[in-house]
Amino acid sequence: MPDLCALLQPRTIAVIGASTQPDKVGGMPVRLLSELGYAGRIIPVHATAREVQGLAAVPSLDVLDTPADLAIVALPVSASLDAMRQLARNGTRAAVFFTSGFAETGGDGIAMQAELTALAQAHGITLLGPNCLGAMNLRERVFATFSPMPLSGLPPLGDVGLVSQSGAFGAYAFALAREASLGLSHWVTTGNEAGLHVADVIEWLAHDDATRVILAYLEGCRDGTRLRRALAAARAAGKPVVVTKVGTTEAGARSAQSHTASLAGEDAVYQAVFDEYGVFRAHTLDDFFRLGYVLSRGRRPRHWQPSAKEPANTVTPVALVTVSGGVGIMMADQAEALDLPLPPMPEAAATALRSAIPFASTANPIDVTGQIVTQPEVLLDAIAAAAQSPDYGSVVAFLAGGVGAPRIWPGLQEAVETLHRSGTAAPLLFSGLVDDEKRRWLEARGALVLREPAHAVQAVAVLARAAAQAAAAQAKPAVSAAALAAPDLPRDTTSLSEFDAMQWLTACGIPTAPHGLARDADEAVRIAESIGYPVAVKLCSPDILHKSDVGGVVLNVADAQAVRAAFAQVRDAAPYHGSPARFDGALVAGMVRGWGELMVGVRRDPVFGLVALAGIGGTAVDIFRQTAFGLAPLTHARACTMLRASRAEALLCGHRGHPAVDADAVAEVFVRVSQAAAALGPRLDTLEINPLIVTAQGVVAADAVVTLHAGDGIND
Amino acid sequence: MPDLCALLQPRTIAVIGASTQPDKVGGMPVRLLSELGYAGRIIPVHATAREVQGLAAVPSLDVLDTPADLAIVALPVSASLDAMRQLARNGTRAAVFFTSGFAETGGDGIAMQAELTALAQAHGITLLGPNCLGAMNLRERVFATFSPMPLSGLPPLGDVGLVSQSGAFGAYAFALAREASLGLSHWVTTGNEAGLHVADVIEWLAHDDATRVILAYLEGCRDGTRLRRALAAARAAGKPVVVTKVGTTEAGARSAQSHTASLAGEDAVYQAVFDEYGVFRAHTLDDFFRLGYVLSRGRRPRHWQPSAKEPANTVTPVALVTVSGGVGIMMADQAEALDLPLPPMPEAAATALRSAIPFASTANPIDVTGQIVTQPEVLLDAIAAAAQSPDYGSVVAFLAGGVGAPRIWPGLQEAVETLHRSGTAAPLLFSGLVDDEKRRWLEARGALVLREPAHAVQAVAVLARAAAQAAAAQAKPAVSAAALAAPDLPRDTTSLSEFDAMQWLTACGIPTAPHGLARDADEAVRIAESIGYPVAVKLCSPDILHKSDVGGVVLNVADAQAVRAAFAQVRDAAPYHGSPARFDGALVAGMVRGWGELMVGVRRDPVFGLVALAGIGGTAVDIFRQTAFGLAPLTHARACTMLRASRAEALLCGHRGHPAVDADAVAEVFVRVSQAAAALGPRLDTLEINPLIVTAQGVVAADAVVTLHAGDGIND
Repeated sequence: MPDLCALLQPRTIAVIGASTQPDKVGGMPVRLLSELGYAGRIIPVHATAREVQGLAAVPSLDVLDTPADLAIVALPVSASLDAMRQLARNGTRAAVFFTSGFAETGGDGIAMQAELTALAQAHGITLLGPNCLGAMNLRERVFATFSPMPLSGLPPLGDVGLVSQSGAFGAYAFALAREASLGLSHWVTTGNEAGLHVADVIEWLAHDDATRVILAYLEGCRDGTRLRRALAAARAAGKPVVVTKVGTTEAGARSAQSHTASLAGEDAVYQAVFDEYGVFRAHTLDDFFRLGYVLSRGRRPRHWQPSAKEPANTVTPVALVTVSGGVGIMMADQAEALDLPLPPMPEAAATALRSAIPFASTANPIDVTGQIVTQPEVLLDAIAAAAQSPDYGSVVAFLAGGVGAPRIWPGLQEAVETLHRSGTAAPLLFSGLVDDEKRRWLEARGALVLREPAHAVQAVAVLARAAAQAAAAQAKPAVSAAALAAPDLPRDTTSLSEFDAMQWLTACGIPTAPHGLARDADEAVRIAESIGYPVAVKLCSPDILHKSDVGGVVLNVADAQAVRAAFAQVRDAAPYHGSPARFDGALVAGMVRGWGELMVGVRRDPVFGLVALAGIGGTAVDIFRQTAFGLAPLTHARACTMLRASRAEALLCGHRGHPAVDADAVAEVFVRVSQAAAALGPRLDTLEINPLIVTAQGVVAADAVVTLHAGDGIND
Repeated sequence: MPDLCALLQPRTIAVIGASTQPDKVGGMPVRLLSELGYAGRIIPVHATAREVQGLAAVPSLDVLDTPADLAIVALPVSASLDAMRQLARNGTRAAVFFTSGFAETGGDGIAMQAELTALAQAHGITLLGPNCLGAMNLRERVFATFSPMPLSGLPPLGDVGLVSQSGAFGAYAFALAREASLGLSHWVTTGNEAGLHVADVIEWLAHDDATRVILAYLEGCRDGTRLRRALAAARAAGKPVVVTKVGTTEAGARSAQSHTASLAGEDAVYQAVFDEYGVFRAHTLDDFFRLGYVLSRGRRPRHWQPSAKEPANTVTPVALVTVSGGVGIMMADQAEALDLPLPPMPEAAATALRSAIPFASTANPIDVTGQIVTQPEVLLDAIAAAAQSPDYGSVVAFLAGGVGAPRIWPGLQEAVETLHRSGTAAPLLFSGLVDDEKRRWLEARGALVLREPAHAVQAVAVLARAAAQAAAAQAKPAVSAAALAAPDLPRDTTSLSEFDAMQWLTACGIPTAPHGLARDADEAVRIAESIGYPVAVKLCSPDILHKSDVGGVVLNVADAQAVRAAFAQVRDAAPYHGSPARFDGALVAGMVRGWGELMVGVRRDPVFGLVALAGIGGTAVDIFRQTAFGLAPLTHARACTMLRASRAEALLCGHRGHPAVDADAVAEVFVRVSQAAAALGPRLDTLEINPLIVTAQGVVAADAVVTLHAGDGIND
């Protein structure tokens, strides 16, 4: 793990290219460090000036006896490599390069950046940038940035670590955090990532005691292993990670031979990674900061459990208290969408509410109605009763404009204070208009305030998930599944014939349609009769993946005569494939009778490695694009989630009068397919089973494609 | 159309139950009207006091010589009917009843409300409420409400009319509008809607000169005709309507006989209504107010056109200018999702930008990079060039924290002012942090400011759609499609056998599989041989809709012998349906060979009348639930949209090597089915064709269900 201590907790900071003008790029860090109370030693480095902004300057680090912890380099690109050599001579431990003109400009910049990186590596210098806006440690007042923003005010000190590839976004995020009173611990922008990646910062923050929540802004990831390690570290530390990931690059021409090569954008793979590590993904900046606020400030629900509908989800019972029936319904719709249970109000509290307001609704949402204008105590009693009831994990109260209203606020304060002191009450989340001072008062007592009622309900689901993930991190790590011993495949093979693929799958313990390879028509009949009619007869050639396109597939073959005709047809089909195609024979396979088609596959992502995909097969693959993704090898839980997310499960649970099929067993087939692919290691390019036919006895592979890299495969 | 002038523009206002205590329900309207500058006559009505809050009071309206325009009634429920009689004697034109205890409490309250309504109707009194928070006309300072909120400040006067069924929501909305500087014209809460519905207020606002944008909050609608008329009026007036509709009630047990009765929640029907009238739907309160802000303040794009992908959508080319590459990508992702074209920067401007910042991106997004910190003029030049280029309809600029930064603001002001004065520049939308004063300055010059960059891009799409809708309202109204002459059906029939349904569809000009009705096996063979093998043989009984459940369907019947066997099977299947089922014969139909199944149907919604639904048929109906809805009869454009929205179109455009099918012709079949259903008028309960098989020659109905109401049908 990269050590960021010298970067983020330096005792001495040298500023190379320090400027006597405080608002220049080279002057700003000196100004920020001086004015905003950095307690360590600041060493301006200036070619001629003896003093920079009131601090003694040196002409070079070479005159120092001791190494600097951190050097901030604000020099033109032409002087950067010399500066790096100077750091090396000094023994400086970490460097921030603001300098632009490196890889982002292409051409020579790429080579210069490579040299900068090499120098840093050779001398053990932790490198941030180049072309970055720098970093801050707000607790220790380290301002290694040329952004003037800290001068106009700092966000409160807090437990949110923020890391951004983009400097402009980082600056904006700093301003938004300040405005939203989001408490920050660290702020880091990684720019060109010649040294440190966003992933490295996440990993360091995962181990940093001052940080409880990590916000990361990502434009792309070049090193999947590094990101996965970082996210695993955060998960193990029980620290929620919120990611905004923008940018969708073309998945490119990879796996062009596969049936469904065009199925997924790269984004689905990122999502699979985020799912794997429990990352909270934000699709807008609003979501990004709101998730940060909720996770940083929000108390976790008192209790939670896996969702009955979707065991991979976490749910918690919530009380919805509202002064507006309609907004109550809106919140209930949201709760239903998030699968949050809404148990009814405890009977005693319900009776009390009804006796005070006869037409109040004591179901959940608990609608105290507009009567609270004249009977505010009824509202407060309802909130208190819900918060004290063990039936609820959290309480969300929509008070419209009433949160801070003079008739309500004093009583609300008393109620919130009492519940807070009790130490056992459910967390409170308010939705409504309230001024900043009252909001801070509520937040200091563990209550969240969100303007949008739907967001308050979402916040409960987010906090339940964070609580469950933190608890899971405390528990023993799951034992990883035993690796599957898949039979070896010839080293020179780059794609398997369907027969070879089916044989290999069978050997891996994956259920396949009964099948055999026939070299001639007589053998085809023998195989068909041993399987039983009807059968499918398919061309077997490692050169032809899309057999049906060349007339190489005959289905529903009903008797011996038809088998002979079919054999002749597929044998003759082979030469039609442009160049002469090899003819291995004809695959004769039983026609599996089922009522639905699934697909499952594994393919190699250039950044993140093996990715499994599964869903409804056949025509629906193209039309509905509901294929679900997961990192291979899959866990059983992930495979179950994929079954649900792709809606494939609908085919398994007594669909249209068909018998129900054991979904766990189907998920286990997904797991096994992913393990089989993983067992091939770097050799695997694509493995796809489509269709995987749903029958009363479970799923059966009826077609398979396997493509490989020759030899030892790609290096990954 | 109900006349709301007496309610919203009264010259005299009587307050029945006026209180001498200004903060009581009966005192607040007197206080608000007096303190906030209502210019008309205020008449407090008080049983004993001669003076109420400094105004001369009367003991009853009976002492007046002239009728009041508006009476505000703040009396207990027990005194309400007497009060209404008093208004009738006086000739009062409109009444607001704050009083709760009516229908919302059930029991006697329902009867009392009916009597209140009857009195109002009998005497021509426009009734708002009861159980409502009242109404305001901000321009004329009419405060017919007991909400104290106007005392703490009014939102700016503007062109947004806001109507809410919920008082609590209405109060919250008022506070949020004030906070967001959303300019309001009117504010109305409708409560129990004994007289005026939300729909009536929408319709009145559609004709009100002070209102350009209508925001409506709806919990439910009991009168679909009224709402449709109101939305049609707003559409005709070119005024955008933003609706938040909460609450999903069970669709209930209707159409229980249909295959797909469980397909759709009522919400899909509301959405179909909103789609029909171009309503902007907001799913959260955030969206509701943001749409109001955007539509009220936002300049429409300079030009727009129907989307190439989806002709029902409006798109406009947009320039994305950004100081952050990543946020640029985020905005571009959003633009792509909304189908907004991103033409590249004009060449001269691109050259200028590149010469100033060599590594700037001059594609679109136009990334001026973080260099603007030192070269702010480059940013301003890029914005100006884009706004002046005819290539763009709008310009969205993400400036992060820089909008109001000292280095940028003066130049930005100059640029915005110049562009604004030119009168020809594209509208500007800024995303970034800016203080309220600067924001107002920008808004006064037609520029919008949105914090979230994705929202700024969405705003462009919203404004383009509003512009297109307003332009369409100016154009001649579309001639409605000629009614289809559907053959009569027997008056006592409540469901058709499949044969009768197919015959009727054929007569309506809808393509059906070749078919005939066989009374005996010989006739079945004759029909089969005239059609050609293979055929399907199906039980025809008006008593049995789910034929396959009783073994009443035999598919792929290949020869005469098999037809005889199949006839015997389905004939014998009839009696198995519990009670003796009628046997009309066997439908013999050609097996249509296609590569996909669609479905199309029409059913009756209790509120909105006939609703058409269409999408992928067969198994996918249950699994993917992508069925699209539209009001019947469908327009051709709506049918095309439904083809796309349901993804059914994927089966038509050369799917998996099949020939492309004329999607327009398929849409026309949808239209015709909806017209055939509409031709049956109130008799129609459900019409459903599933599957509608996709073949190279177009779509063919292979099964149909028609259920009817007996006699003249339901009254609607």
